[in-house]
Amino acid sequence: MASMGRITTKRPVTRISLTYGERRRPDTLAVEEPLEIRIGGEPLAITMRTPGHDVELSAGFLVSEGVIGVGGEFLSAIHCGGPGTGGDDENTYNVLDVTLAPGVEAPSTDLARNFYTTSSCGMCGKASIDAVRTQSRHDVAADGVTVDAELLTRLPDLLRAEQEVFDKTGGLHAAGLFDAATGELLVLREDVGRHNAVDKVVGWAVLNDRLPLTGTVLMVSGRASFELVQKALMAGIPALAAVSAPSSLAVELAAEAGLTLVGFLRGESMNVYANAERIRVPVPTS
Amino acid sequence: MASMGRITTKRPVTRISLTYGERRRPDTLAVEEPLEIRIGGEPLAITMRTPGHDVELSAGFLVSEGVIGVGGEFLSAIHCGGPGTGGDDENTYNVLDVTLAPGVEAPSTDLARNFYTTSSCGMCGKASIDAVRTQSRHDVAADGVTVDAELLTRLPDLLRAEQEVFDKTGGLHAAGLFDAATGELLVLREDVGRHNAVDKVVGWAVLNDRLPLTGTVLMVSGRASFELVQKALMAGIPALAAVSAPSSLAVELAAEAGLTLVGFLRGESMNVYANAERIRVPVPTS
Repeated sequence: MASMGRITTKRPVTRISLTYGERRRPDTLAVEEPLEIRIGGEPLAITMRTPGHDVELSAGFLVSEGVIGVGGEFLSAIHCGGPGTGGDDENTYNVLDVTLAPGVEAPSTDLARNFYTTSSCGMCGKASIDAVRTQSRHDVAADGVTVDAELLTRLPDLLRAEQEVFDKTGGLHAAGLFDAATGELLVLREDVGRHNAVDKVVGWAVLNDRLPLTGTVLMVSGRASFELVQKALMAGIPALAAVSAPSSLAVELAAEAGLTLVGFLRGESMNVYANAERIRVPVPTS
Repeated sequence: MASMGRITTKRPVTRISLTYGERRRPDTLAVEEPLEIRIGGEPLAITMRTPGHDVELSAGFLVSEGVIGVGGEFLSAIHCGGPGTGGDDENTYNVLDVTLAPGVEAPSTDLARNFYTTSSCGMCGKASIDAVRTQSRHDVAADGVTVDAELLTRLPDLLRAEQEVFDKTGGLHAAGLFDAATGELLVLREDVGRHNAVDKVVGWAVLNDRLPLTGTVLMVSGRASFELVQKALMAGIPALAAVSAPSSLAVELAAEAGLTLVGFLRGESMNVYANAERIRVPVPTS
């Protein structure tokens, strides 16, 4: 029933209006399906995602989890079908088997638990932050890039212009990666899950051997959580911009790790929550 | 550094405007901290959440995961401090130890993985849906409640009016539980994570021995994912309404399990994606 890359689907919906009563019509929905990520045949994790760019999603997920840190460590991935994956030997395109490069250690199947246990050891925010900082192979604090404030204000429109699906369904988050110097959109991905959209972007960089992502800005359509800041740091992205608000722990992690964190990027203004010194502000015009 | 129930915090922010330049000012942020849920001292899960209502969060989480199904199975919970929980014997209020009622089986520490493996077995949406349907002890399809369309249109304003934090931070999701007959707000909870807000609502019902939540409507501030529909079903809630769009799998699960799913509930209209027969529609006025 699932198919690769189908990101929207049409379903009948009952539209009810107090004024006009009810009528049936088709509505476009964002597709959500589970993806099981395997490494060398061993199940590693399951995520609810919008189908499409699954290889990127798996590659980005492995960067976020600290399994790989540069493109060469990811060898290949293939959707697998057959018994036990969808019944009736049907390939549901919901199981993806990853092959790591020789010498890259496959994580234990308890990776998800181990990771969270580690990153939250001691269970206070400070300990979480220290663990994440230690874990990333890339130091965004060392990235000397600067970004024009004017360039940042153009990103939300660029993101929206490239979004193919959002207007149709209202159900997808977007993440776009931009060149910090030119404002060029390098890649945009959409998903029902914000974290998946970011993993797909990072996975694109893995497949194109562009890690670490120095000199880039990651723009997301929603809010900025601790998890998204963490993903940016693991990929070596020095600046994260969000349309909406960040959380307290997202700000703390960004501040300590040297990531520039921008929120409420709307119109001609923004809030900078951490490392504002990377942003070049024009002389006020009034 | 964390404290119980602190849901917002003030931080300095650099406000940048192309017109007016930059200035520093304090900004209110939604607090996000990790919570480790333990059962009888054994770590079970970690979630990033907004502090406050942690006991409800843990109780609701256990309902969502199928560990408990009625209020009497949850005995007590206590924030634990001491060595290994926050360093320096400080109680960070980020570790909560749950005691289940005698005879209630504690889940294995691999519960999270087992659950997802089970609910996604076969990895197609249909298999996921079957697994979830089987797992819930409560059958919402048997709930004969009906809801006035006019009552539903009042819920978003009722939710917003009760939200204490959203307007200040822009960073919190809300979930509100309403009586389907009267429209009375039974409980509202907020969190940086939508799933946590719903778990807190369900946990409130656990602590007040109100499971299953027959005759209620759950209203959420954002989108309706598969996970939220699943949580409603596990708690026996017959109707879920969202301000924004549902995903495809959310609609499929709702349709098959007998849950009424409403999306784009705005102004005087709404889209009903599943089990519209529960909604009483007025004779059109024009």
